[in-house]
Amino acid sequence: MRDLQTIAESARSAKQAVARLGASEKNRALEAIAAALEQHTDAILSANAEDIAQGRNTGLNDGLIDRLTLTPARIAGIAQGVRQVAALDDPVGEVLWMKTRPNGLRIGKKRVPMGVIGIIYEARPNVTVDAAALCFKAGSACILRGGKEAFRTSQCLTQLMRTALVSCGLPENAINLVEDTSRETANQMMRLNGYLDVLIPRGGAGLIRTVVAHATVPVIETGTGNCHIYVDASADLTKATAILKNAKCQRVSVCNAAESLLVHTDVAPRFLPMAAEALASDQVRLHGCPRTRDILGGLVLPATEEDYAREYLDYEISVKVVDSLDEAISHINTYNTGHSECIVTESYTAAERFLDEVDAAAVYANASTRFTDGFEFGFGAEIGISTQKLHARGPMGLEALTSTKYIIYGNGQTR
Amino acid sequence: MRDLQTIAESARSAKQAVARLGASEKNRALEAIAAALEQHTDAILSANAEDIAQGRNTGLNDGLIDRLTLTPARIAGIAQGVRQVAALDDPVGEVLWMKTRPNGLRIGKKRVPMGVIGIIYEARPNVTVDAAALCFKAGSACILRGGKEAFRTSQCLTQLMRTALVSCGLPENAINLVEDTSRETANQMMRLNGYLDVLIPRGGAGLIRTVVAHATVPVIETGTGNCHIYVDASADLTKATAILKNAKCQRVSVCNAAESLLVHTDVAPRFLPMAAEALASDQVRLHGCPRTRDILGGLVLPATEEDYAREYLDYEISVKVVDSLDEAISHINTYNTGHSECIVTESYTAAERFLDEVDAAAVYANASTRFTDGFEFGFGAEIGISTQKLHARGPMGLEALTSTKYIIYGNGQTR
Repeated sequence: MRDLQTIAESARSAKQAVARLGASEKNRALEAIAAALEQHTDAILSANAEDIAQGRNTGLNDGLIDRLTLTPARIAGIAQGVRQVAALDDPVGEVLWMKTRPNGLRIGKKRVPMGVIGIIYEARPNVTVDAAALCFKAGSACILRGGKEAFRTSQCLTQLMRTALVSCGLPENAINLVEDTSRETANQMMRLNGYLDVLIPRGGAGLIRTVVAHATVPVIETGTGNCHIYVDASADLTKATAILKNAKCQRVSVCNAAESLLVHTDVAPRFLPMAAEALASDQVRLHGCPRTRDILGGLVLPATEEDYAREYLDYEISVKVVDSLDEAISHINTYNTGHSECIVTESYTAAERFLDEVDAAAVYANASTRFTDGFEFGFGAEIGISTQKLHARGPMGLEALTSTKYIIYGNGQTR
Repeated sequence: MRDLQTIAESARSAKQAVARLGASEKNRALEAIAAALEQHTDAILSANAEDIAQGRNTGLNDGLIDRLTLTPARIAGIAQGVRQVAALDDPVGEVLWMKTRPNGLRIGKKRVPMGVIGIIYEARPNVTVDAAALCFKAGSACILRGGKEAFRTSQCLTQLMRTALVSCGLPENAINLVEDTSRETANQMMRLNGYLDVLIPRGGAGLIRTVVAHATVPVIETGTGNCHIYVDASADLTKATAILKNAKCQRVSVCNAAESLLVHTDVAPRFLPMAAEALASDQVRLHGCPRTRDILGGLVLPATEEDYAREYLDYEISVKVVDSLDEAISHINTYNTGHSECIVTESYTAAERFLDEVDAAAVYANASTRFTDGFEFGFGAEIGISTQKLHARGPMGLEALTSTKYIIYGNGQTR
């Protein structure tokens, strides 16, 4: 077993070789990885079976077992994801701008690899491959630390990827898995200053909180989503119903699903029954303010402060009637998590104000919050959705995994 | 005295009002601040005199007293700096790109204010005003925590700025100074998650290390600079001499000054005597490798590992003869701090390789490292020079103090 320090040094020593690779070399290696995953499906399934068996023994619930479980189809999907990463444009080397200063210096800003990227995630074997492929395509070495419940699977996947790199004449240490799955090692990883250029936690709120609290290396906080749909006085209520239904019900377990509905008092008597009917077919439980309960009656549970702050990730939603756009914006800026927020309105002014004044990574006029996603935004695969304001905000594709440097061409200039 | 929690809440409550200001309102307030500083020069000098007297009593050295001391000319310079910030373009609101997706969604990336910015700095009263002006122009509220030796001066400057804001009908809590200068409060400030969107330490290596080690809010690490000049085999030695002299001697106490000289073995016998002569007129002490000492003789001190890693900030430099461009790049990537690095060469390939492979915020071909500076790069005033790879790298002007959001215009789209 390689200890964390050894892994950190290996990754750091590999980063320059990875940074220098051209797109075609990187894509060839990614194709080799995809092929290796398909070719060694049996080995992966066998490692995965051990993880599943141990998970059942230790009493993992069905949801976690499902997240952990691979099938031939899922492995094929993971390999296909690697090929999609290969198909993305190489972000490295783009010169974002270049200008000539009065003294003749030509100064340009160039996109460069980050160096070494750390990813801490839960027991989702697919993340092992997704994250490695994205970091590699972005020109960085990576250190992966996945949930211990999926360790054997992740180890098998990592070994296949490393072997594929070697088969292409590339350093296997471009992709590294932390083999000691203890909590101390995770904490140690959060403090690998001088080795890790950035650490990205990918998972639930608890994991992210832990990393933010303990890390001394730069972190990109990915996000929980308490997303709101605000139905304005001038909303097209048919659009509003479709957007609400989609944002709440199309996939409840994801961070861009709606968790709260705000309705302008002028349209509440007409819209709330439409909303309740649309959500009823999915058995969505409503937690409403007193005015909501007056309109919809006793089936609506009373909403508490906690309801307004909650990311249910389930067939539940909080509902509040508001007197004005200002109240809606203020409520959202109080309770949201800076993820995705939507106004449904036909008013030009209301739409512009909402988009300006709501503080979130993605603000929508008249579209479902479910679009906050790397593929939907046209970035391709994403490493997560940032809810912080530093470096990257919203869906993080390959560009979010890069840094920049200034390149300066002179002919002897001095100050 | 307002405690830190009160200040944090005040800043957070002011941030939306600041974020919504247009450029003309912000510029009017900055002009009012500049005028107030000039008009109340006597009050500032009087507060400053108290800080200086206390500094002398507690035995501050002359350098620190000088950094702390304001004069009418220095105050005029600070006011002029505020007017220069007013003259900069407003970074807020720029839409960096906007595109239409196949489903008709129009998605744009827009530059928005950061929110609340924290700055921790040393006993430099000018930073109190520079930082406040930059954060304000970037549309953010700020919380400033300066060195306690300059507290009375900073308090007077802050009060003048807050009064000027109020005179323009703007919230005074856009600009806040931490009034409890204890170390515990500084540590508490580093953990103001939910209030501070970013914390920027501005000062020496010790301050920056402390902030990086203790902060749980996002930090931008500004930098120490162990900057190198590499004189390649094909260098124009006249250019090399001028660049070396400028980078080392023009101002020794700054982070973009050269601290180390690397010379290709082919030109070392000719170049090192030229370099020694150029540096001798400023009494620069050389710490050389054995080959350097062979060429230059006994006046050169032996260079240790520590010399190669040191940021002297003084009339001293380490010198090493290298056998190849590869050795130069490898040496720099081992010892540098990711700030500014220069190659002097007439070789196209050597220049391109150096610019590609040296890992630093600014990489130069044939120009002095002293140009790494917001004004020299054409950004205007800067808040510091980032040596990390996340969010901002190199000189940080107004844009580095902003974030982005995605704005999405739909017409009822669902997934």
